[in-house]
Amino acid sequence: MPADFQQIGLIGFGAFGRLIARHAPAGVRLLAYDAASDAGELSPPASCRLSRVSLAEAASCPLVVLAAPVTATAAICRQIAPWLRPGTLVVDVGSVKVQPVADMIANLPADVEIAGLHPLFGPQSAADGLAGLRLVVCPTRGRKAFRLAALLKAGFGLETQFATPEDHDREMAMVQGVTHMVARLVASLDERPTRMATRSYALLMQAVDMVRRDNPAVFDAIALRNPFVAGVQEQFFEAAGALRRDLAARRAAMTDVEPQPCAAAF
Amino acid sequence: MPADFQQIGLIGFGAFGRLIARHAPAGVRLLAYDAASDAGELSPPASCRLSRVSLAEAASCPLVVLAAPVTATAAICRQIAPWLRPGTLVVDVGSVKVQPVADMIANLPADVEIAGLHPLFGPQSAADGLAGLRLVVCPTRGRKAFRLAALLKAGFGLETQFATPEDHDREMAMVQGVTHMVARLVASLDERPTRMATRSYALLMQAVDMVRRDNPAVFDAIALRNPFVAGVQEQFFEAAGALRRDLAARRAAMTDVEPQPCAAAF
Repeated sequence: MPADFQQIGLIGFGAFGRLIARHAPAGVRLLAYDAASDAGELSPPASCRLSRVSLAEAASCPLVVLAAPVTATAAICRQIAPWLRPGTLVVDVGSVKVQPVADMIANLPADVEIAGLHPLFGPQSAADGLAGLRLVVCPTRGRKAFRLAALLKAGFGLETQFATPEDHDREMAMVQGVTHMVARLVASLDERPTRMATRSYALLMQAVDMVRRDNPAVFDAIALRNPFVAGVQEQFFEAAGALRRDLAARRAAMTDVEPQPCAAAF
Repeated sequence: MPADFQQIGLIGFGAFGRLIARHAPAGVRLLAYDAASDAGELSPPASCRLSRVSLAEAASCPLVVLAAPVTATAAICRQIAPWLRPGTLVVDVGSVKVQPVADMIANLPADVEIAGLHPLFGPQSAADGLAGLRLVVCPTRGRKAFRLAALLKAGFGLETQFATPEDHDREMAMVQGVTHMVARLVASLDERPTRMATRSYALLMQAVDMVRRDNPAVFDAIALRNPFVAGVQEQFFEAAGALRRDLAARRAAMTDVEPQPCAAAF
């Protein structure tokens, strides 16, 4: 790793912070800050040097990764602004990109570089390693994000894709907005048979299981902080309403019971 | 194949009839009848002897497979009753079991054996062969269905499961009722991105693609002819309605726009 990516300030040590810690290569030092005192166990591999540090120390690294809920992006940027060094690359790794990128532009000093990152994977999909998994990069200010993307591609086999925050959120409205909504609805049902599974049902339940244990903040970001998701979800809800009415009408038409004549008002 | 399963009368030559024809072993003769004159091309492997025959000829076989839409079961049973021989095994292969099994009991002669079969696969999932695929068997009258199930297990590697029609339909209300409904709703959306697919989205779309091209009669059978499906689907629709209201309320609470005071009536 080149010098400017050898020391990484990690702000937020949740599921994604732990994933970074698990995969950080030897020679990389992770300085992690988390506002919560019980930010989970720190059990990285021995090759990864991870320390719990203050926010100021994390913000002083040449690469700063915001891995906190997207709703905290603006406030964190304002908090770390005094400690950031000129030329630092600040990236976020949230599930939406329009809002956090706008928050970073509005609240970070003009002399730091900025990029939005969205690793299209989580602890579940990365269980077998990172090779072949996708990373969306939204370069926003400066050129370092391109170099970081190239390093992640070469070092971990990640498939990197460049996009604007708008293009990212438009695709994710369907990819995540609909998938996570369907998963939540299916997971809420009382039944969960496994004996007579069809192949399509097994695939659906695999998809459901990949996201049903996600942190609720992930669902909230996907469903509430993506400017395009309401439209796609409304289309789904409208289609569901239409199907419900259609099925009810056809079930009513099928029944052998004769409709009772209306009793006149007495 | 024992003599009583070597000659199979196939009533209905749609997607499932063709699947049987493709996999029928050498030595088996298929006598196929379809009410539609354009019942698709007949292109079985050379080892499979398939002939287009009259309904009477198909019904005269020692094993008769009803592979027509489930709504036609009762009428077909009445039609074939005069030609069926004593001891014949009549099976259906529909996606629901309570109604067609009741239709067979009510409309077939007392001296034929009866079983409901549900192969939990279709042309899509059987593309790579039948081994490991599941077949639900509802033995209803006589013992031949057990022997047929054992032969299908030994000959094709199918995983056979025995169940009552009620147990079958109760599981399928979720397995197929929900999966096919979700697939139809997701397939109806305008968006279909592929560039930034997550693993869970890819699994969901695989499930969607397995069933979206099914014959509409299959969806109708699953959604309208299973006595338990309305309850499960209503639970899904209720959950969707609740989620829609919850998301709308939270989006409204998030907006920075101050609510306008109501204009007094003028």
